[in-house]
Amino acid sequence: MQQDSDILGFTRVRRVAPIGIATHGGRAKCLQRLIRLDLPVPETVAISFDMVHRLAEGELFDIAALLRVFGERPLLSVRPSSEDPDWGGPGAILNIGMNDQRQSELAAKYGQHTADRLYLEFVQTYSVNVERVDAELFEFDGSVDLGDAVRAAKVAYLEETGEDFPQDPAVQLGQVLRSMARAWEGTTARLLRQAKGAPADAGLGLVVQAMSLALGDGECGHGVVQLVDGETGAPGTYGTYKRHTPAIDPHNAPSMPLASESEKSFQYDQPELFRAIVEATQLCRHRLRDEMELKFTIDNGELRVLDAIRVPRSSRAGLRVAVQLAEDGIIPRHEAILRVPARSLTELLHPRVDPLARRAVVAHGIAASPGGACGRIVFTSSAAQAHEARGEACILVRRETAPEDIRGMHSSVGVLTERGGVTSHAAVIARGMGVPCVVGASIRINTRAGTVTLEDGRELKEGDILTIDGTAGEALMGEAKMLPPAKDHWYLTLMDWADSIRDLGVRANADTPTDAAMARDFKAEGIGLCRTEHMFFEGDRLTVMREMIFADGNNDRREAIARLLPMQRSDFIELFRIMEGLPVCIRLFDPPLHEFLPSDRRGARELADALDRPLSEVTRRIEWLSEFNPMLGMRGVRLGITFPEIYEMQARAIFEATIEASKSGRAVVPEIMIPLVSAKREVELVKTQIDGVAAAVRNETGADFTYRLGVMVETPRAALRADEIAQHAAFLSFGTNDLTQMTYGLSRDDAGRFMNAYVQQGVFPEDPFHTLDTEGVGELLEIGAARGRKSSPNLTLAVCGEHGGNPESIAFCRAAGFDYVSCSPFRVPVARLAAAQLVAAEIK
Amino acid sequence: MQQDSDILGFTRVRRVAPIGIATHGGRAKCLQRLIRLDLPVPETVAISFDMVHRLAEGELFDIAALLRVFGERPLLSVRPSSEDPDWGGPGAILNIGMNDQRQSELAAKYGQHTADRLYLEFVQTYSVNVERVDAELFEFDGSVDLGDAVRAAKVAYLEETGEDFPQDPAVQLGQVLRSMARAWEGTTARLLRQAKGAPADAGLGLVVQAMSLALGDGECGHGVVQLVDGETGAPGTYGTYKRHTPAIDPHNAPSMPLASESEKSFQYDQPELFRAIVEATQLCRHRLRDEMELKFTIDNGELRVLDAIRVPRSSRAGLRVAVQLAEDGIIPRHEAILRVPARSLTELLHPRVDPLARRAVVAHGIAASPGGACGRIVFTSSAAQAHEARGEACILVRRETAPEDIRGMHSSVGVLTERGGVTSHAAVIARGMGVPCVVGASIRINTRAGTVTLEDGRELKEGDILTIDGTAGEALMGEAKMLPPAKDHWYLTLMDWADSIRDLGVRANADTPTDAAMARDFKAEGIGLCRTEHMFFEGDRLTVMREMIFADGNNDRREAIARLLPMQRSDFIELFRIMEGLPVCIRLFDPPLHEFLPSDRRGARELADALDRPLSEVTRRIEWLSEFNPMLGMRGVRLGITFPEIYEMQARAIFEATIEASKSGRAVVPEIMIPLVSAKREVELVKTQIDGVAAAVRNETGADFTYRLGVMVETPRAALRADEIAQHAAFLSFGTNDLTQMTYGLSRDDAGRFMNAYVQQGVFPEDPFHTLDTEGVGELLEIGAARGRKSSPNLTLAVCGEHGGNPESIAFCRAAGFDYVSCSPFRVPVARLAAAQLVAAEIK
Repeated sequence: MQQDSDILGFTRVRRVAPIGIATHGGRAKCLQRLIRLDLPVPETVAISFDMVHRLAEGELFDIAALLRVFGERPLLSVRPSSEDPDWGGPGAILNIGMNDQRQSELAAKYGQHTADRLYLEFVQTYSVNVERVDAELFEFDGSVDLGDAVRAAKVAYLEETGEDFPQDPAVQLGQVLRSMARAWEGTTARLLRQAKGAPADAGLGLVVQAMSLALGDGECGHGVVQLVDGETGAPGTYGTYKRHTPAIDPHNAPSMPLASESEKSFQYDQPELFRAIVEATQLCRHRLRDEMELKFTIDNGELRVLDAIRVPRSSRAGLRVAVQLAEDGIIPRHEAILRVPARSLTELLHPRVDPLARRAVVAHGIAASPGGACGRIVFTSSAAQAHEARGEACILVRRETAPEDIRGMHSSVGVLTERGGVTSHAAVIARGMGVPCVVGASIRINTRAGTVTLEDGRELKEGDILTIDGTAGEALMGEAKMLPPAKDHWYLTLMDWADSIRDLGVRANADTPTDAAMARDFKAEGIGLCRTEHMFFEGDRLTVMREMIFADGNNDRREAIARLLPMQRSDFIELFRIMEGLPVCIRLFDPPLHEFLPSDRRGARELADALDRPLSEVTRRIEWLSEFNPMLGMRGVRLGITFPEIYEMQARAIFEATIEASKSGRAVVPEIMIPLVSAKREVELVKTQIDGVAAAVRNETGADFTYRLGVMVETPRAALRADEIAQHAAFLSFGTNDLTQMTYGLSRDDAGRFMNAYVQQGVFPEDPFHTLDTEGVGELLEIGAARGRKSSPNLTLAVCGEHGGNPESIAFCRAAGFDYVSCSPFRVPVARLAAAQLVAAEIK
Repeated sequence: MQQDSDILGFTRVRRVAPIGIATHGGRAKCLQRLIRLDLPVPETVAISFDMVHRLAEGELFDIAALLRVFGERPLLSVRPSSEDPDWGGPGAILNIGMNDQRQSELAAKYGQHTADRLYLEFVQTYSVNVERVDAELFEFDGSVDLGDAVRAAKVAYLEETGEDFPQDPAVQLGQVLRSMARAWEGTTARLLRQAKGAPADAGLGLVVQAMSLALGDGECGHGVVQLVDGETGAPGTYGTYKRHTPAIDPHNAPSMPLASESEKSFQYDQPELFRAIVEATQLCRHRLRDEMELKFTIDNGELRVLDAIRVPRSSRAGLRVAVQLAEDGIIPRHEAILRVPARSLTELLHPRVDPLARRAVVAHGIAASPGGACGRIVFTSSAAQAHEARGEACILVRRETAPEDIRGMHSSVGVLTERGGVTSHAAVIARGMGVPCVVGASIRINTRAGTVTLEDGRELKEGDILTIDGTAGEALMGEAKMLPPAKDHWYLTLMDWADSIRDLGVRANADTPTDAAMARDFKAEGIGLCRTEHMFFEGDRLTVMREMIFADGNNDRREAIARLLPMQRSDFIELFRIMEGLPVCIRLFDPPLHEFLPSDRRGARELADALDRPLSEVTRRIEWLSEFNPMLGMRGVRLGITFPEIYEMQARAIFEATIEASKSGRAVVPEIMIPLVSAKREVELVKTQIDGVAAAVRNETGADFTYRLGVMVETPRAALRADEIAQHAAFLSFGTNDLTQMTYGLSRDDAGRFMNAYVQQGVFPEDPFHTLDTEGVGELLEIGAARGRKSSPNLTLAVCGEHGGNPESIAFCRAAGFDYVSCSPFRVPVARLAAAQLVAAEIK
């Protein structure tokens, strides 16, 4: 058999036949499975990837032999069969074999109208798809006689191609096969499927099948059926049926619902056939282990199954189907876990703009933080806060955001920026907050006029209503229809299963009580990164921070910092209480001080008034603190060592909060993380300092507590020197955002202007801020992990950058022996599922 | 003998005795050598590091046994003997053994005055240095009778210590030894010597010697002698002699010149003794293989040699002495090479402020580029150019410098900045130009008033005269005395010897014809880094660059760039001609475009006028091009790929210049270097582009030429991926400045504010921008070199950062298998010598 097909160039699809997905494609394999289930599939022949490729190159095999499989004068269909249906492929071509002679024969048997219709359709399809003749030449309005239309079509064919319409079925079939083979090799088709993840050498198989014309006197028609709703995944019998009558084109025939109480349904009309159809579909579900959509005909009262495909489904339906299949015992749980793309969860956990509703898109941008939001346009953070105070939802529209906008972002339901990429400030913070966000949008903000110009030139002003779709990266005019988030039984069940097998920890990056509550809600196993600096932008604290920065000498500075202590302490008490004993990893103060100062003249003037100091002094200090490259400047541990009062205050706040929070529940063991380390001595100095504060707090309070001190690995040097750094650290947590910036010498804030072009030109295979660069940054992670563990075997290893929520990066971290990843709360479910999938993939 | 000394705690210094520099110190060893040369050294005993350490801890040995070595009632001196005389040590203590009885005996023999003087001196020294009594208590004016003074001193001692002045010589000696041992262990002494490079456990030996009092009726006196001038190294007999007469304190005796035609010289007065002294010194020079300064006494007509030390010498004298010793056959040439600290050459090659002249220091800063310069203060680059045009030397005084100041720096004889560290823009560029420079100085520039405030509060204005000392890091009021540079016979001879053994290439970083000429003058073997961007700041070019930046669309941009082509071509022709076939490595355009735009409002307004565009448009473009972290932004190859016209123009200019320059001499093989690479695809794209330009130029001109394309490794990722990057590169040149910035996550421009504190606290052992961080950045160099060579065995490896001129970094590069280093022209001699020293150190 194998040999036969190799020689002949095709394989009959039978119970026993060498058909494989990797050689003949999914459709061919699926048809073989249907045959094995004894379903009534018309005679089918499969042509392998290899043969199709040779067809495209000009080779041809014995078509006559193929035709002989189908008996006397068959009519045939050809459909594509690639490895993955998502990769596309040429459209099906039906009724191959129609010619003048078959026209007469069919006319005699089923009437002239039917014969003319079949022939006309074939001439049209063949001319347009095989010979690439302009489709307009074959359009006839309904008033033309079908027989005349067939003749006119054949004339048009002759005029365009210089040849008569081919009458030989072997010629027809050969040309159809070759044209489909060539279409697959075309540049556009190739690019399209590669964009969907197809490898460069992805093959196309073809399936040739006997037509089930379903013509005659008995019950005749065709339809589709599936047993779940594609949008929700809810069970039911969904489908339509079109009855064939000689008088009406089947295409134009009214379709009747398949299942319904109504008398007009197929179920009511043909209960036995209906039962046969449902049983066939159920059989497929059980034996093909998925929800299938069947394409069938009723041919004079006989069911024929022509094809079956996986039911197309939304993310939401996909999750429900996977869980239901496992609950029904059709697939094991670990397979259900593998079937749900981890990334699809983000869609489920945000309210979102209804993808099916009509949308008035007025700007396109980068989908920076998923979900939909609708509100009134504001241009400043203070306006956002004012709206929030009035209980009005608002969308913050900015050229770009800066740390001083964080309060405004918190007060908004969505963020839209003119500049920036997926890792711009706005994008990162918005993802962290779970606020829908579109960045780098095709808008123009006119600061002076207080308006925003949209793609179509229209101008909107503050207070106008806008919807943003952070999943699609679009802004929509007015209020769009929204769908609620889906955290239902199916989601919860799947995540339980996932957690039960997962062997990599997942924590959340959470800075505020709101974040922490969200982290718990998403079942994070702790906080992996609590950035304390955001705490200093809130309310009165910014003022105190500024007083600290303007302090004359150590005493004044110490005094200002002392006023921050109770605020920080209560921050931490609240966090610890929410987390109820789960680990909380607090990163010590990190940003450069100038982030706390105003960046414009007006701000400087206000600050001078507030501090009661001359404007010139304020300006001078701002200027002095400004940096050429803030990312590489006086921040993190450098600031901590230069102004030790800050870390001392923070350590004290953490320890006092630890004692307080431990009183009312499980003992809290805080984790303290030192940022931007590049030398072990930095760790030694800060460790000595913090151990000293701990001893002092123990002495003063008489209470005991423990804590873990660790290092955030963000510089390449810290990764390279992980052996000596690990000697003083209980954990190393890799901040892959900064590590990526430094490894590439590339600022995420400035990369936006060329990153798209770079990825499109293939300079970088992916945006390294989005998907971990396993070759460069990844090697530093591996080096750091291996050296750290070697010098300190009990060292905890973690990743706490944006990459912590990226499935590919999670796989890398697990392979490199990391203990946990930490990501923004909204990505925690993604990370949990992705991590579980790594285990699931190893089962069996 | 060994055993004896171990038991006794001391060792008699004799021909054969176990004395070593590492156990007893340099002075003890040197004295043994003098004895071996049969020079008349008084009886001497050495105490080992180990014993001195035990003394400090409180242990004591048999002092009586030590005293017995010196016979009946000796007077003794104790002097320190550490491994390196530069490490300091306690001062000598003389006349130990003086007491009431010896006072009487000496009075009987040499007169009461002499006896009283010796006793008084001892009581004073002992009280102050051993018992730490306040020195003021022992100050007597000249009118007091010496006998009364001795008595008063002993009373003061009793009152302060509660005990009589010790009369037992064993007690005296024991206390002296212990106090000197303890002084060595003190914190300050330890810090001071560690600052000079002493290890933490550096030991101190002590030398006890019989006093040669040189009292009596025959010729008596003491003096010092050396056979070279310590400042210039010129041969001669230099020294002084003080004749002892009972009536006059030897301290106050007028010293007579040792060698002179004058009748008042020792040479004239005592020709035989003079000859003996000179012969002894010559003997030392030959046998101790260095220029020695001898301390001697004439004791009743007999020469006694008390001590000998290496003649203290300036860098200049040191070089001349080393070469002269080798020319005299006393030391081999490779030893002469090793004796000259490579860094000392920088001092020799600049005119410098006379270190011995009085100096009115008005500001202290960081010694950023060596040499002295004197001129009128200017605050702007345009003023500097105006001064240069008038032929007036000027000093550019700026808060900090930016690329637009380069022309001003070229026009100035020196640069002084308020901000910045050793690797700030001003420092790097000034070193490159060989312009003396002091950065981070204690000055305050008042831009509005047009004045600079000095340390003492004085204000200077434009036109006032200032001297800067870039070697010492100081600014001096007015015009200071200067010494000319020393590129004399001795220097040239040493460098010839060095080049004859050197096995590591040394090139210069040179951007301009002036730089290139300097590079050749300093015998660089080519240009290792020619930064092309500086060329665009000159004259009309800045205007064209700005037109390019403001071009509307590709055509306008191409047109502006086309106007730059002939300028660039003539730049390269000139460089190639100067370098006469030596390799020239040209780095393609690197900086972000915003460096070419004005940074203030006035500049923007002028630019708008010049371009005839609305100010708002100019401001918007400047704003759009501005970056958060320019170091990590749109520069280097990123710019080259985004605007391919720039690199195409540069490649064409290089190739056309190659053809032109090759006509009139040796064939030029240009090297083209791609900056800021982080992925191999970047190299592939640029290589394709440049190969295309080469093909086009070959076609158009019919001329043939070859060139080498390489990559500047500045990002950690490029080092990690060196294997695949090397596949498309003829060379990898490591830009260690940027690589250090990215490995540490530390901007050199912003590090200045805390780097000093960081190095002082030992957080970083050295400023990594100054000395290559061999542990972190160095590992990336090793990884890059090994991976690059593995994938491409003929790969050329180089370092072209500031570190290329640093001796320690050069050693590292040689060990890592690099082919050459490239540094600023003025550091080329340093690099040549340092590289030769690595070979020299391996000889024997």
